[in-house]
Amino acid sequence: MCELFCNSGRQDLYSVQCSLRRKSMKVRFSVISFVPPGTSIAVVGSLPELGSWKVSECPSMSPSSPPKSMEPSFWSADIAVDDLSVPFEYKFVRKTNPSANWEWEGYGSHDNRKWDGKEMLSTPASEQDVKVFDGVFLLPPTHFMESQGMSEYSHTTRFYNSVKERNDMHYNRVSDNLWVGSCPRSRRHIEKLRDELKVTCLLNFQTHEDAKNNFPDPEHFPEWDKRTPQVIYDLFKEYSLAYVWIPTTDMSTQDRANMLPQAAFILGALIQNGHAVYVHCNAGVGRSVAAACGFLCYCLNHPVRLVHHMMCSSRPVAYFDEAALRAGRSDFQVKYGDVYRRLHEDGQKRNCFLSAGG
Amino acid sequence: MCELFCNSGRQDLYSVQCSLRRKSMKVRFSVISFVPPGTSIAVVGSLPELGSWKVSECPSMSPSSPPKSMEPSFWSADIAVDDLSVPFEYKFVRKTNPSANWEWEGYGSHDNRKWDGKEMLSTPASEQDVKVFDGVFLLPPTHFMESQGMSEYSHTTRFYNSVKERNDMHYNRVSDNLWVGSCPRSRRHIEKLRDELKVTCLLNFQTHEDAKNNFPDPEHFPEWDKRTPQVIYDLFKEYSLAYVWIPTTDMSTQDRANMLPQAAFILGALIQNGHAVYVHCNAGVGRSVAAACGFLCYCLNHPVRLVHHMMCSSRPVAYFDEAALRAGRSDFQVKYGDVYRRLHEDGQKRNCFLSAGG
Repeated sequence: MCELFCNSGRQDLYSVQCSLRRKSMKVRFSVISFVPPGTSIAVVGSLPELGSWKVSECPSMSPSSPPKSMEPSFWSADIAVDDLSVPFEYKFVRKTNPSANWEWEGYGSHDNRKWDGKEMLSTPASEQDVKVFDGVFLLPPTHFMESQGMSEYSHTTRFYNSVKERNDMHYNRVSDNLWVGSCPRSRRHIEKLRDELKVTCLLNFQTHEDAKNNFPDPEHFPEWDKRTPQVIYDLFKEYSLAYVWIPTTDMSTQDRANMLPQAAFILGALIQNGHAVYVHCNAGVGRSVAAACGFLCYCLNHPVRLVHHMMCSSRPVAYFDEAALRAGRSDFQVKYGDVYRRLHEDGQKRNCFLSAGG
Repeated sequence: MCELFCNSGRQDLYSVQCSLRRKSMKVRFSVISFVPPGTSIAVVGSLPELGSWKVSECPSMSPSSPPKSMEPSFWSADIAVDDLSVPFEYKFVRKTNPSANWEWEGYGSHDNRKWDGKEMLSTPASEQDVKVFDGVFLLPPTHFMESQGMSEYSHTTRFYNSVKERNDMHYNRVSDNLWVGSCPRSRRHIEKLRDELKVTCLLNFQTHEDAKNNFPDPEHFPEWDKRTPQVIYDLFKEYSLAYVWIPTTDMSTQDRANMLPQAAFILGALIQNGHAVYVHCNAGVGRSVAAACGFLCYCLNHPVRLVHHMMCSSRPVAYFDEAALRAGRSDFQVKYGDVYRRLHEDGQKRNCFLSAGG
């Protein structure tokens, strides 16, 4: 995964509170954008630290991995801000090659992003979802506002259709033993999972209908009615891969919230049992991302905003369903909280449990 | 649950092997039958210990709980057999009141049950599913052969239809914190679970279609299309009951085998986390019984035949899907085995994990 989160664990709450009382601190700006290789992205704004609206003087951002065509990339910059109690405005700008002009996001000044100067002071001490990690205040990852009015949804659809058309499998590593991606579509993909990625277990959130549409072995079962769930179970058995299937309806925050406690608990147990897990749904954007976030949030106890950064920086196409993640948290706690905590502590004692950093 | 299993845990393999080499030992005969209150059941056979085919001299059996009309009861007798290497034959007999004649099961001598004298010696040392518990050799529970040709399936259907017609909920306690039963059909049932049984969590294996047909709150949602899964989630939330739903197709050993590792693992974690769990499907006969058996077998490590006895003696209407139970075992081991073992050991150290005996 991205190096941003490799060097330390979660801060204790005390040091976070101290940080929040400081007016001066680093702020992580981050943005996700569909851009071709060779692109630059920067953040420009009203503060001197942000170039006082001059693109020639504003700080540039770095991608978590080099941009590729047909998929989004995640860009970030840590900027030291002198006084965070002062309101300011900002925007992201990009140029696709060094000699091009900077393209501003949105339509004009009414699309400016705003920092009201109050957030630092308004975070209560009891708020678990602290926003500071490793001494840096994390602004939520956002998407570059396309001037052509391209929506996030159409971006994701464009990405997924391109994966599907190429009969491809698209994935990212989120931590040492955790991959999130699109469904395997062929025996070649299954072999790749096992032999290249060293995956030992798959966790699937497709509905049975989804799985029929995106069948992992179409050559042997061209007929629709022979593409049964059992054939898929048998297929993974043939490759000696453990397989957990939790069918979940797509595009539904409510269904994800219902699925999340079980999914996160099972995923945590598989990883703690030494498995390298490939979590997938259709595109590896919604349901599987939610499950991986549930694991990071409920099992490893990372704050929600940190999980948002971890997920988007390692898999920029991820859709972060914060509502589902928050809704499932207390349910996880009631069902498995204490037992998972003990399991985790035991694992740490034995030094066999992996940190989220890769 | 039945007192048969309260007094000790699993024997170690060495003492079991010693037992198996002994020719003389107690044998537990057990039979399940639909009989009215006031019935007696006995086992009669060719051995002197079994009355030498004379019903006046054969040993009587005891029910695990008093028989009720419209549901089966479980009967057993522990008989000391002098030499188990000698083949013998036997049958179950019953009479519905003390002055009635004994009714013999089946049609005639070709329906005799047979002990070939070889089973005691043919159990290999490596066989995990030992058949001796607490010094008693457990014969598998069986069903009284109805002379009218009534099948086990029609018995179960008769039981379930009677529960459904009475708009009832039928359940049994399998261990301290584990109940197995039919689906709740009304708010009154949910209140009963919470307030009388002190249940804190439900684990449901109905399909969504099953749940629509057997809706727990029909008064508020008489319209079919408003009986959504989400309404059920919200209903249990209203009663502050934790709720896990693992939809599983009925009447399918394969689907049960696929579901079992996850179901057993989750059930074990819920119980270890202090929950009192009500496991249900439609009738509480197939899928929910399988899940409870999975917990007893994979999590508590009880041998398959003991689990068969535990389940049928506590819930005589249970259908024991041994094929699914055996098929899911190695899958459970691969996915969660080591992590569950550590969890269990930790629980035992803290003295907070329940034994299967009630």
